[in-house]
Amino acid sequence: MNKPRNQAEFPTPEVTTGPLPGSSRIYTSPKAAPHLKVPHREVELHPTAMEPAVRVYDCSGPYTDPAQSIDVEKGLPQTRTEWVTARGGVEAYEGRAKTPLDNGNATGKYLAREFPVRHKPLRATGKVPVTQLEFARAGIITDEMIYAAERENLGRAQALPGADIRHADGESFGAEVPEFVTPEFVRDEIARGRAVLPANINHGELEPMLIGRNFLVKINANIGNSAVASSVEEEVDKMVWAIRWGADTVMDLSTGKNIHNTREWILRNSPVPIGTVPIYQALEKVGGVAEDLTWEIFADTLIEQAEQGVDYFTIHAGVRLPYVPMTAKRVTGIVSRGGSIMAKWCLAHHKESFLYERFNEICEIMRAYDVTFSLGDGLRPGSVADANDEAQFAELETLGELTKVAWDHGCQVMIEGPGHVPMHKIKANMDKQLKECGEAPFYTLGPLTTDIAPGYDHITSGIGAAMIGWFGTAMLCYVTPKEHLGLPDRDDVKTGVITYKIAAHAADLAKGHPAAKIRDDALSRARFEFRWEDQFNLSLDPDTARDFHDQTLPKEAHKVAHFCSMCGPKFCSMKITQEVRDFADGLSDNERADLQKQADEASEGMAKKAEEFKAKGSQIYLDN
Amino acid sequence: MNKPRNQAEFPTPEVTTGPLPGSSRIYTSPKAAPHLKVPHREVELHPTAMEPAVRVYDCSGPYTDPAQSIDVEKGLPQTRTEWVTARGGVEAYEGRAKTPLDNGNATGKYLAREFPVRHKPLRATGKVPVTQLEFARAGIITDEMIYAAERENLGRAQALPGADIRHADGESFGAEVPEFVTPEFVRDEIARGRAVLPANINHGELEPMLIGRNFLVKINANIGNSAVASSVEEEVDKMVWAIRWGADTVMDLSTGKNIHNTREWILRNSPVPIGTVPIYQALEKVGGVAEDLTWEIFADTLIEQAEQGVDYFTIHAGVRLPYVPMTAKRVTGIVSRGGSIMAKWCLAHHKESFLYERFNEICEIMRAYDVTFSLGDGLRPGSVADANDEAQFAELETLGELTKVAWDHGCQVMIEGPGHVPMHKIKANMDKQLKECGEAPFYTLGPLTTDIAPGYDHITSGIGAAMIGWFGTAMLCYVTPKEHLGLPDRDDVKTGVITYKIAAHAADLAKGHPAAKIRDDALSRARFEFRWEDQFNLSLDPDTARDFHDQTLPKEAHKVAHFCSMCGPKFCSMKITQEVRDFADGLSDNERADLQKQADEASEGMAKKAEEFKAKGSQIYLDN
Repeated sequence: MNKPRNQAEFPTPEVTTGPLPGSSRIYTSPKAAPHLKVPHREVELHPTAMEPAVRVYDCSGPYTDPAQSIDVEKGLPQTRTEWVTARGGVEAYEGRAKTPLDNGNATGKYLAREFPVRHKPLRATGKVPVTQLEFARAGIITDEMIYAAERENLGRAQALPGADIRHADGESFGAEVPEFVTPEFVRDEIARGRAVLPANINHGELEPMLIGRNFLVKINANIGNSAVASSVEEEVDKMVWAIRWGADTVMDLSTGKNIHNTREWILRNSPVPIGTVPIYQALEKVGGVAEDLTWEIFADTLIEQAEQGVDYFTIHAGVRLPYVPMTAKRVTGIVSRGGSIMAKWCLAHHKESFLYERFNEICEIMRAYDVTFSLGDGLRPGSVADANDEAQFAELETLGELTKVAWDHGCQVMIEGPGHVPMHKIKANMDKQLKECGEAPFYTLGPLTTDIAPGYDHITSGIGAAMIGWFGTAMLCYVTPKEHLGLPDRDDVKTGVITYKIAAHAADLAKGHPAAKIRDDALSRARFEFRWEDQFNLSLDPDTARDFHDQTLPKEAHKVAHFCSMCGPKFCSMKITQEVRDFADGLSDNERADLQKQADEASEGMAKKAEEFKAKGSQIYLDN
Repeated sequence: MNKPRNQAEFPTPEVTTGPLPGSSRIYTSPKAAPHLKVPHREVELHPTAMEPAVRVYDCSGPYTDPAQSIDVEKGLPQTRTEWVTARGGVEAYEGRAKTPLDNGNATGKYLAREFPVRHKPLRATGKVPVTQLEFARAGIITDEMIYAAERENLGRAQALPGADIRHADGESFGAEVPEFVTPEFVRDEIARGRAVLPANINHGELEPMLIGRNFLVKINANIGNSAVASSVEEEVDKMVWAIRWGADTVMDLSTGKNIHNTREWILRNSPVPIGTVPIYQALEKVGGVAEDLTWEIFADTLIEQAEQGVDYFTIHAGVRLPYVPMTAKRVTGIVSRGGSIMAKWCLAHHKESFLYERFNEICEIMRAYDVTFSLGDGLRPGSVADANDEAQFAELETLGELTKVAWDHGCQVMIEGPGHVPMHKIKANMDKQLKECGEAPFYTLGPLTTDIAPGYDHITSGIGAAMIGWFGTAMLCYVTPKEHLGLPDRDDVKTGVITYKIAAHAADLAKGHPAAKIRDDALSRARFEFRWEDQFNLSLDPDTARDFHDQTLPKEAHKVAHFCSMCGPKFCSMKITQEVRDFADGLSDNERADLQKQADEASEGMAKKAEEFKAKGSQIYLDN
């Protein structure tokens, strides 16, 4: 329960600001649209490295830029709104009237304060393109596409062609990650439905980004209060904290009271796409009784959230009445909240799901704001025992059917995936998703590769996430150490994000992303050359890396020492290797040939001795 | 540096004792050898579960058995010594005279206290079988083999055939994990070299265990002091702590002073096989100057450690002179300590490695005590950039050659593997190892799948470890969060062990191990039925699972509550699923058919509507 407080006493959410160690947020302007300022993070290296700064993808927003003033009460600048209105096809309107039910009828000191600023919402006026998919199909490259292309490239254009960047090897399983990402490539991927650019026209604070198999693998962090715990300030802080460490999108999964106001604070301060599961709020509006849900309440909730600027909605329209009995023999039944709500509704009314039956109408609402579909896997397995079963795959086939319907309406679509899946059953999920859903981006939760480690499910699922990311999943939904046990706190959010950045990056490397290895190689060189500060700053979590180092060798002097605590000063393999390298560099061709000759002779000698012993040795057993 | 102290002031190492929550250590006696008492851990479930206790593999030793009295000053009982002497072929002898150099010439208060009890060492007397490999080839099933077979089975014989145990599906990549492990199967696997049973005849405290592709995947934990940090008590405590959480073997990688005495304390208190890298101590004996190493010092060190009871030695005999220049162009050169020491020696003397040239003599020493070879990968890659390169694979080919030589001498052999390898290059490592090394067990360090996350390398490597374990690696060497940064403390050891238990278990599941899924399913049922205590107790780390739960819902009452903190009381998908299940169970066949009919009609309706819209929708773009 949120702590009771007066509106006036509601504290301004405190968020973490300032750059990451050794990093600065820089901006580039794409040739195709010089008015855009596209953010990147640059990690400066020590002068002895003789290497340029390493540019990494940055989703932290203005919070890491000391030149930007942050005022959570005002929200971020709505720069993108100009791009949207300049294109036409949208109108500002009064918007749906807010009701007390939107915040669970919370009143007085139980009601979280409203966000101080109100903007009139925008919506589509008619049939001219309004969604990124419609623009893409019409051959129009939007500012969002140019912006996102520039982000994906990370300045590769400047760096290439160079000694450090070679076309990486890899196994892409059919993905076609280009050497350079052009705006036209982005447009084409969106038009084909292979990528989404989640960007509600009412999310003016957004820094556009891409989710698709041929781009960098992205990660999502879930936040949200519940009836039992957490408060508005905590959730805003968690959002800023999650993006600081690399969350590409954030889902607000709040339940309980104050859902509307919590979401408004998050959206107005979020540079990343925000996703929600609207059925959660709809259920609150009917007092938590699934069978009382109606299409009208659900549709009204979609409009409420679309007007606020939510970028993607999880819609569990694949949980169909005939699939529900398929779950009866499962070890863990239906574990998706949305899935179980809809299953209960279907059975209570003995009717097909209204999400499925009214899917065309849902599309019309979502198109009007360019809310991207995230078709929910309400029947995902909740244990390795239930992985890849009839219910799960029946739903996936329906999601494929619905993908095409949504595309016909001009809506962008991604598909949610499991869940709990042992390693040998992971690839079948990816293959079937690609086949059934026309290559729409896959967005999976893990999957967890075993059920026996509650408290460590960021790891059980990080294994599965890395693998399915390699196989082609476009976005990985994080799992925190608290999964199955409690609500994640700030530390859990960070651990979940870093774990999933690892999984996503490992996947990029294995796919052969042409630039992913730049950061690994820069860090490895720093490690080899004992540039400790560079090693920390190039890591996903410089604070933890430095802290771990300092626990054993706290002195500043050790940060330039040519040894480390594991081996001590005499025993350093890195140091010895440098000596080996100097030696090897000095060898002439003749000396090298001589080495080989000696080696061959030794090998022959070894073979001979072994033969001798074999003859002798076979006696061992005869002696018995 | 170890803290200075008087011998009398040396504190008795304090170790953690007592059972894990909800668990008891039980013993079974195999039919083939009723005098043996083989340990298992049993997790009791709540009476409402109506399920038998779940038996899990137990490597924690007598420390978790309240019926055993623990006295670290005396060490564990040397039960196994009777088995060894009863077979004959060994003799007790005075042993090598200990020298001050064995403890780095530490004296007075800098010298760690000697272990209070001294046993005369045993060694082979002649050519009759003394190693497990020799017995296996001679058709003799040892007590160790019977013991280890019983451990692997975990009482499957009683449980089968039953509803809960089905032959699991899986992809084994050629491994042949049997439904039941018989002593004869163990003997055959050892005889073929596909498994090792590391069991120095001087390690009487050992509870025998197996490492091989057709058994449960095992994990190793590294401990050890260095010149910079840590002390004897800490290392003994870490060993007991590591096996409490599931380390199947422990490597003592101590460097600096007091190596001999530290090792003695560890061995006398260790029920799991202990591995070492003898070149580390040999290097200490020559003042840390690699080029001063001699065969005599090395051989003497092997005997010193073999007499103490070390079960396996890492021997970097594959680092050959001609391979050294192959590493010169690497991003991170040679990162193995042993590898870089030998590379330096080779270059300094411009000679082939004495480990390679004297390999037959090394075999003779190791055979006399049944020390298992762990052929070290001194040229393993230290960065993803260097993975699977010429130097690494050249060494692996030599390790294959040496495997056959060691086998000819009657020695057991496993092969060490990398290291840092991106996901798409992992399988090639396993395939080449199987091919080159005649299916000798592979023992890998991770591999780390990216270099960019120092501080989280248990996770970057846990991903690779799970995958290579699935592909066929028999033992996974853990990596802790401190890797590359500092020496692991107690918490790091636990995190490393749990992470690697996850990787090993995920691998067992994916391979289709016939019994691995029992624990997952029991935990998933507990989760579904809100048996919180059972969920905690069945997990790899019950303490952390309970702690995380209690952070949000600390009250005892909540441990039986049918909801949890993530969703609150109204919103529980598990609860709703139970209602769905009750409903589905009540459906007649007619009702089921009716459901399907309704669904088909709805699907047709959907297709029709989409078609209509498509016709309408194609106008969108024409309007422009």
